[in-house]
Amino acid sequence: MTEFPSENQETFNGWSRKIYLELPVPSEEDHISDQERILRELGKEYGEVRFSLKALRKLHPLCRDTQWKVTVFLVWNGREWELTDVEPGNTTNRHFGFCADLGSTTIAAELVDMNTGKVLCQKTGFNHQIQFGEDILTRIFYGKDSREKTEEIRKAVVESFLELFEKIREETGIRPEECGALVIAGNTTMIHFLLGLDAFCVFSSPYAVRTLKPDCYRAEELGFPLQGYVYCCPGQENYLGGDILSGILATGIHRGEKIAVFLDIGTNGELVIGNKEFLVSGAGAAGPALEGGVVKTGMRAEKGAVDRVLIEEGEVKVHVIGETVPKGICGSGIVDLLAQMFLNGWMDMRGKLVKEASVHIREKQGEPAAEYAPGLYFYQSDIDEFLKTKAAAGTMVEYMMHEMGLTMSDIEEFYVAGAFGTHISKEAGVTVGLYPDIPRDRIILPGNTSLQGAERILLHREEKETLEELLEKMTYIQFGAVDNFLHLMAAAQAVPHTDYSRYPSVVEELKRRGRL
Amino acid sequence: MTEFPSENQETFNGWSRKIYLELPVPSEEDHISDQERILRELGKEYGEVRFSLKALRKLHPLCRDTQWKVTVFLVWNGREWELTDVEPGNTTNRHFGFCADLGSTTIAAELVDMNTGKVLCQKTGFNHQIQFGEDILTRIFYGKDSREKTEEIRKAVVESFLELFEKIREETGIRPEECGALVIAGNTTMIHFLLGLDAFCVFSSPYAVRTLKPDCYRAEELGFPLQGYVYCCPGQENYLGGDILSGILATGIHRGEKIAVFLDIGTNGELVIGNKEFLVSGAGAAGPALEGGVVKTGMRAEKGAVDRVLIEEGEVKVHVIGETVPKGICGSGIVDLLAQMFLNGWMDMRGKLVKEASVHIREKQGEPAAEYAPGLYFYQSDIDEFLKTKAAAGTMVEYMMHEMGLTMSDIEEFYVAGAFGTHISKEAGVTVGLYPDIPRDRIILPGNTSLQGAERILLHREEKETLEELLEKMTYIQFGAVDNFLHLMAAAQAVPHTDYSRYPSVVEELKRRGRL
Repeated sequence: MTEFPSENQETFNGWSRKIYLELPVPSEEDHISDQERILRELGKEYGEVRFSLKALRKLHPLCRDTQWKVTVFLVWNGREWELTDVEPGNTTNRHFGFCADLGSTTIAAELVDMNTGKVLCQKTGFNHQIQFGEDILTRIFYGKDSREKTEEIRKAVVESFLELFEKIREETGIRPEECGALVIAGNTTMIHFLLGLDAFCVFSSPYAVRTLKPDCYRAEELGFPLQGYVYCCPGQENYLGGDILSGILATGIHRGEKIAVFLDIGTNGELVIGNKEFLVSGAGAAGPALEGGVVKTGMRAEKGAVDRVLIEEGEVKVHVIGETVPKGICGSGIVDLLAQMFLNGWMDMRGKLVKEASVHIREKQGEPAAEYAPGLYFYQSDIDEFLKTKAAAGTMVEYMMHEMGLTMSDIEEFYVAGAFGTHISKEAGVTVGLYPDIPRDRIILPGNTSLQGAERILLHREEKETLEELLEKMTYIQFGAVDNFLHLMAAAQAVPHTDYSRYPSVVEELKRRGRL
Repeated sequence: MTEFPSENQETFNGWSRKIYLELPVPSEEDHISDQERILRELGKEYGEVRFSLKALRKLHPLCRDTQWKVTVFLVWNGREWELTDVEPGNTTNRHFGFCADLGSTTIAAELVDMNTGKVLCQKTGFNHQIQFGEDILTRIFYGKDSREKTEEIRKAVVESFLELFEKIREETGIRPEECGALVIAGNTTMIHFLLGLDAFCVFSSPYAVRTLKPDCYRAEELGFPLQGYVYCCPGQENYLGGDILSGILATGIHRGEKIAVFLDIGTNGELVIGNKEFLVSGAGAAGPALEGGVVKTGMRAEKGAVDRVLIEEGEVKVHVIGETVPKGICGSGIVDLLAQMFLNGWMDMRGKLVKEASVHIREKQGEPAAEYAPGLYFYQSDIDEFLKTKAAAGTMVEYMMHEMGLTMSDIEEFYVAGAFGTHISKEAGVTVGLYPDIPRDRIILPGNTSLQGAERILLHREEKETLEELLEKMTYIQFGAVDNFLHLMAAAQAVPHTDYSRYPSVVEELKRRGRL
């Protein structure tokens, strides 16, 4: 969660406004219509406000019964203010909005106090789309060319949101009906699903998707019980969606002088490099290895997962989430494990397990494997998978920096977005070559930047324009189309890299340990 | 129906556009999103077009299946263009819109070809609201302070429209779903009912109504099966509604040099006087006498109604609609009858029946009555009612002219709007003092100007702004608030007027007949 100054309402130029009006009671001399009376009071500040039918229908007897002391709810519909509701008396202190990160596995939603900018509640829940496939491709094939199935998927997403809204209501007593706007950041596929669109286009040549910049839609039209409008962050390309753009906003690299790298690694790797002068973006398949769910004993970062690994005096010491018996290993555990095995010589620079190095390395199911906890093994094939992923990510960064005539030492900020980034040890990340070998304080793990960006947009309406300007400005590189990309990637599959000179701190550590 | 030049599409700046696009097929080099592809092709001409969810969902597989030859439907939502639909191939020749006059008794709707401006079909039907009361006040009291009953009334209006749409479909094969916009002109009460608003405010002090300038609403939201938006002509006051404003547009008096009077007499009388330099408006209760439905044997102008009357050689000669046995008398028949009775001395200048003048004048149900057809009587009380109505109308004109320092001879155009005006004989109208005694070619009977104005707006979107400017410019006089109004009205109840000098042509005719 980004911390915003918690001053008064004026600080925020959010997607909704609540304004308390004490209107002059109609008289023979002043008998303009109720609608006009309210608009006259609002003045010119809000431009030509749209007056919703719902609000119009509520005016009577509400205005009379409250002696014309009412609160109006204005929601920005992307182009103009719409007066969506009228409430009795002064209700300006109850003024809320939602933002969300719509991920393929989990959805994170925040209820925001639009007066103070404070996040009142944050909840995450599974994306019910999972019933149509654990991985995105399966879901896409499920919905392909079928209006009905696309609709099933859409409904599953909406239901996931409704569950989150309900959880939030239970905790705060605030109903979604009291919220004016919902800002959602998600990748291109997720947004297609949310809008009820066939997402096959996202993964098939020529990658011309249905929309990258959806209009603002009425919440009602999308099936949400909110007052007003839903805005989805625009994306740049099929593989570079609104979650990344939102992330850029959250980190603010587009505003800074410093040359920054923004990296989000999941099934796909997305990358943005630049500062306020330039921005280059790219995306490529990375592989799901980092998400913990793919390797044989991998699991999500939940109770029973090994999340920290240290090899000392020939023994593997692990930390288990929930301080319980280990059941598997999550992303941060994997990076730790590989870094530790490499530094202790259990794994060589090609990423191959060295059977002679430890009793814990042995043949298992026809391949070498490392027993990182009693009965739990990390296999050679898992390592290979991981290295491909980290190589893809590393190569994207390398290639892009090179294209711009930059070297790793030019990187002043290296953001690793997502939950994965938050938990991984910086040192281990550098050791295995996932991150470049730069001063550790330049490696920044900002957490869920997609959600943070959505929150920022919700509270700062002008960021919609910022995003649109970013999209105009940003150059996109399609890595698949790059000639020597595979060659570069092969070199990057070594630990930490074929070119050791790029990793001086790792070399030093190896020397300290007498391994070089 | 107004005749517009039937040139090509460019002539019209209507509320909707259909544009045929032959889009470049997406390729690796040009793989912008489908939405962006369409918007790019539309260019800047339409500004920042809203892209509806419905259209977005239709893009696939439609674009692919048609090799990217599609027609887009743009509808003006009052502030910007909204792309509401995408159709396969070139369907620009099927481009339609609706306009309607929403009256308390009847609704008249027109299906318009938005390419040529031609009216393809016009239908009228009863307003089903009648089930809640023949007269407006009864309906208003029915709906007062009840959401449910207001909703019943609203549904009755919508159903009346649906019936008209269905009649039009039967005749033309064109479904309302093919129409982009519906422009409706109606009085303030009718518009309140249409929007589902309690209309008690229209008739109760301080006459501050809910809205005089409704926003554009999605047709769907109002229960109409159209693509796009519904626009209701704005009104100026509780008693001076959008039907009058629309009428002004239709006659064009706001554009002309000539000093014009626009008069609409029904249950209420509405009046606008002016030209392009100034406009003054007013309204007052007139009485339903002119509508034919109130006098004892009165009826609507339908089969069996006496619509023309001539008294020759002591006998009443009548024309009956449908050339059948007379069943009653309609508005134009009433005016003819009174004029003829006056000119033949059967009725004196006070409007009293003169029993001695004819065998057809006799005591009936305790009051004098004229037998205008075998067994059908027009009663003294009916005459009194009529004279009050015509006095109210005449006095409004007189008062307003006087206020502006104008005399009757300054009137260059005298418009009598509505079906009533169309059928009434100018000569008879002058004789009874309903119209001023001005050269007959200055008396113009334009028909349903409310409908004509709605048609004009539908085809000329900029007239929305014209209307809004008119509203700013026009001064409204509340006749009820005028001190000597009742005094003036009493003088105007004579036939043609207490002051004979105002009716020189009537005086001449009376002299010719030896009655003066």
